[in-house]
Amino acid sequence: MDRLGANPANSCPLTPLGFLERTATVFGDCPSVVYHDTVYTWSQTHRRCLRLASALVSLGVSRGDIVSVLLPNVPAMYEMHFGVPMSGAVFNTINTRLDARTVAVLLRHAGSKLIFADPASLPLVRDALRQLPPGHRAPRVVPVEDPQEKEFPAAPPGTLTYEALLDGGDPEFAWVRPRSEWDPMILNYTSGTTSAPKGVVHCHRGIFLVTVDTLVEWAVPKQPTYLWTLPMFHANGWCFPWGMAAVGGTNVCLRRVDAAEVYATIARRGVDHLCGAPVVLNMLANAPDAARRPLQGKVRILTAGAPPPAAVLHRTESIGFEARQGVRTPGMAEVDIVDGETGRSVPRDGSTMGEIVLRGGCVMLGYLNDDSATRAAIRDNGWFYTGDVGVMHPDGGGENISSVEVESVLYNHPAVNEAAVVARPDEFWGETPCAFVSLKEGSGSGAPGAVTAADVIAWCRERMPHYMVPKTVVLRAELPKTSTGKIQKYVLRNLAKEMGPTHKGASSSSRM
Amino acid sequence: MDRLGANPANSCPLTPLGFLERTATVFGDCPSVVYHDTVYTWSQTHRRCLRLASALVSLGVSRGDIVSVLLPNVPAMYEMHFGVPMSGAVFNTINTRLDARTVAVLLRHAGSKLIFADPASLPLVRDALRQLPPGHRAPRVVPVEDPQEKEFPAAPPGTLTYEALLDGGDPEFAWVRPRSEWDPMILNYTSGTTSAPKGVVHCHRGIFLVTVDTLVEWAVPKQPTYLWTLPMFHANGWCFPWGMAAVGGTNVCLRRVDAAEVYATIARRGVDHLCGAPVVLNMLANAPDAARRPLQGKVRILTAGAPPPAAVLHRTESIGFEARQGVRTPGMAEVDIVDGETGRSVPRDGSTMGEIVLRGGCVMLGYLNDDSATRAAIRDNGWFYTGDVGVMHPDGGGENISSVEVESVLYNHPAVNEAAVVARPDEFWGETPCAFVSLKEGSGSGAPGAVTAADVIAWCRERMPHYMVPKTVVLRAELPKTSTGKIQKYVLRNLAKEMGPTHKGASSSSRM
Repeated sequence: MDRLGANPANSCPLTPLGFLERTATVFGDCPSVVYHDTVYTWSQTHRRCLRLASALVSLGVSRGDIVSVLLPNVPAMYEMHFGVPMSGAVFNTINTRLDARTVAVLLRHAGSKLIFADPASLPLVRDALRQLPPGHRAPRVVPVEDPQEKEFPAAPPGTLTYEALLDGGDPEFAWVRPRSEWDPMILNYTSGTTSAPKGVVHCHRGIFLVTVDTLVEWAVPKQPTYLWTLPMFHANGWCFPWGMAAVGGTNVCLRRVDAAEVYATIARRGVDHLCGAPVVLNMLANAPDAARRPLQGKVRILTAGAPPPAAVLHRTESIGFEARQGVRTPGMAEVDIVDGETGRSVPRDGSTMGEIVLRGGCVMLGYLNDDSATRAAIRDNGWFYTGDVGVMHPDGGGENISSVEVESVLYNHPAVNEAAVVARPDEFWGETPCAFVSLKEGSGSGAPGAVTAADVIAWCRERMPHYMVPKTVVLRAELPKTSTGKIQKYVLRNLAKEMGPTHKGASSSSRM
Repeated sequence: MDRLGANPANSCPLTPLGFLERTATVFGDCPSVVYHDTVYTWSQTHRRCLRLASALVSLGVSRGDIVSVLLPNVPAMYEMHFGVPMSGAVFNTINTRLDARTVAVLLRHAGSKLIFADPASLPLVRDALRQLPPGHRAPRVVPVEDPQEKEFPAAPPGTLTYEALLDGGDPEFAWVRPRSEWDPMILNYTSGTTSAPKGVVHCHRGIFLVTVDTLVEWAVPKQPTYLWTLPMFHANGWCFPWGMAAVGGTNVCLRRVDAAEVYATIARRGVDHLCGAPVVLNMLANAPDAARRPLQGKVRILTAGAPPPAAVLHRTESIGFEARQGVRTPGMAEVDIVDGETGRSVPRDGSTMGEIVLRGGCVMLGYLNDDSATRAAIRDNGWFYTGDVGVMHPDGGGENISSVEVESVLYNHPAVNEAAVVARPDEFWGETPCAFVSLKEGSGSGAPGAVTAADVIAWCRERMPHYMVPKTVVLRAELPKTSTGKIQKYVLRNLAKEMGPTHKGASSSSRM
């Protein structure tokens, strides 16, 4: 028994890139990527990705170089999820809604060698490049055509565009395989919800595991017709670019997500799956009648990130969508809740709060060029520290009390517009939940029957265990947000800290 | 970038055993295992498995020891798929239909330290133990009770039975985690279809990957109600014991698989999934009316191993079953077809035959105590040699011509009872397909309009590409079979070799 171990036939690196090769064989003539009237097959997509990889190598891109992209959900964006790492490069998607200053910060930090950009993002990219410090070697910019959009000016003759690059590529290219499954494959910048952007690096093994995990978690069937409503630049579209290749699905691309276009595309293409944050459910549920089309078949919406408010969920389902909320990682991760100081597990009493920690194949390699942040997040005790607060129940089930549960109850309050819960220092508990809330118009201060912070606390007391009820509720006109509309919890956390510690057993409320 | 790599938070070993912990938390109060009137919850199953693991350690079982079991699909068999490897031991299921001599050969080869046995298998086990050579340290036998079966005699007072063992175990046991994901976890003996039994050893990582792969391939939903028709002792029930824990399903156990009991259990328990070789489909399709019950909902049958004949498939579906055939591994394996002598890929011409080779995380560690067989199967060029013959098509799709396609066409012939295709040496091709066929009563030699080998070849010519048509057809009264009813292809391969090589382009037929 001791003589048996990893061998040459079973130890080849785990990577999601292999899904493309297999699907090109098994589903070669089936549609892979659809955009307006363009329909690619899996065989074509496979060859286009190999062309891309070979062309990048010809341009001098080599193993470990970073290739950045600013693109909406168009076919090229899909292809790059394979073609870029198949050149050996690390693939870095950048949110197209960022400002030029932030894009410049990211490009400088990443040291990107090449940028693919949508016509709509070219001005942003050029602006960002002008803000790079003198002496910084500017990345090459390759524009990606979109002949479907007539208002975009054509690239000047002689420009090396995406399609020109592919024309010069080799569709039989022997792609650059990872030397180890721990080789970096993806670089994603955090959106600045909790702190300044950091470059999260994932390896081939990690992306493989998250992709497979996502397919299992949502029981994605063979050959679904999948609508791209979730931006691929956001956490790589929850790994669905690779997932769709694994199950041989059809990727229906969409440049702009508005309700009328989503309903029309579902009808035209027979879409049966889509992903979206709760905001997408909200858009579909509240679309005007003129924008709606009756659903011909069942359409499953896979949602995650934040829990959709129950009212939105019910309304979406009444239209005929079937919404499923993901609870990540059936088996790739362990979770614990530990005392931030000692690193020891908190008691399984459902009330002692601590920091939620994770381990498993889905955990990042670390932060790019930020050893101290990496060391703070990934500790020698084998855990990744999430920065979220939770409690552990007697049955071993951990609960994130900082956001998911409490915010969901707050959103159900008829007068609540937005809600975010963060930890506030507490003399006894270490931390207690602190809610920041904005109210709907006509519900706030001065209105008849105006809702108070105490009313919100009372609402929570009736609907959740005592330990989860926010000890502090702060009413604000608006909550601070990032460029992508996410609430900036780190700003709120700082505010909560500045308020000073709460005292044992006390609830408090304030208005800012 | 170079400073980032595997770290303490993401490099914990992949193992399917973790599925149980997570499911006990997420689905703790949901049914896990059902048998007659016994219903366990996931929380209970988790604790029973930990008790088992701790009790085994207390008995002196240690890391790498082999624990064998002879059990039908009862709850204890399910629990052992977790509890045995959670003790650090390697889990070895033995086919309960083998004869005592073969069981003795396996126990001796494995050096099993302990055997769990069903009351129905105890006489077989005792018989096998008597056949162990003098001086061989006999394994301890632990009988597994089945109070549901009244005809089984109770174990003598004081016997250490399975339940007594669990009673002494610790439900909070810190289970013995693998030190590496390459640690051995499973030992399965080949059934002797192609050669004498060999001990196939799989590691935690391999079983994890195959399990996840199976769930993706069949798009198994959350919390299915799964009927155990496939024996867990057969290839660990295609990894569904671990798969059901990953998705929080209900395992409906069944000691005996007969049509009436399967139909009754589907109705009683609301079964919606089951696995089975084509023989199970056949049994359900041809059940007498008295044994049948109408299906209340959709029941998916996941089938693999051999392709079910089209007629059986259609009949099963007409009853209301939805049968899906698996085509293993969406992404864990690469396939090639190589020249057996040179190891080079055969031309992608759809006609040059070679040996099918695989690589990927699903490939075994090797054969237990059989270095030469391991070296013959797993070569330094990084491939696992399957022993099957195939061709590679121009699109990169390999095709196994030795069995799947050709046998399926043969089974469709109205006079064919059984068919098996093996490779026969050929002066030009290296190998050509050779079919052994038995005919239905009244179709063979002497009958009016008797079917000849030439008729069978003509039938194939009309229905498959030329290169796939058997060059040799041998009619026999019966085909040689193993104790489990599988056709012994190695016997047929030897017969084909003894016939000597075929000649270029020639077809031949013979009668034996």
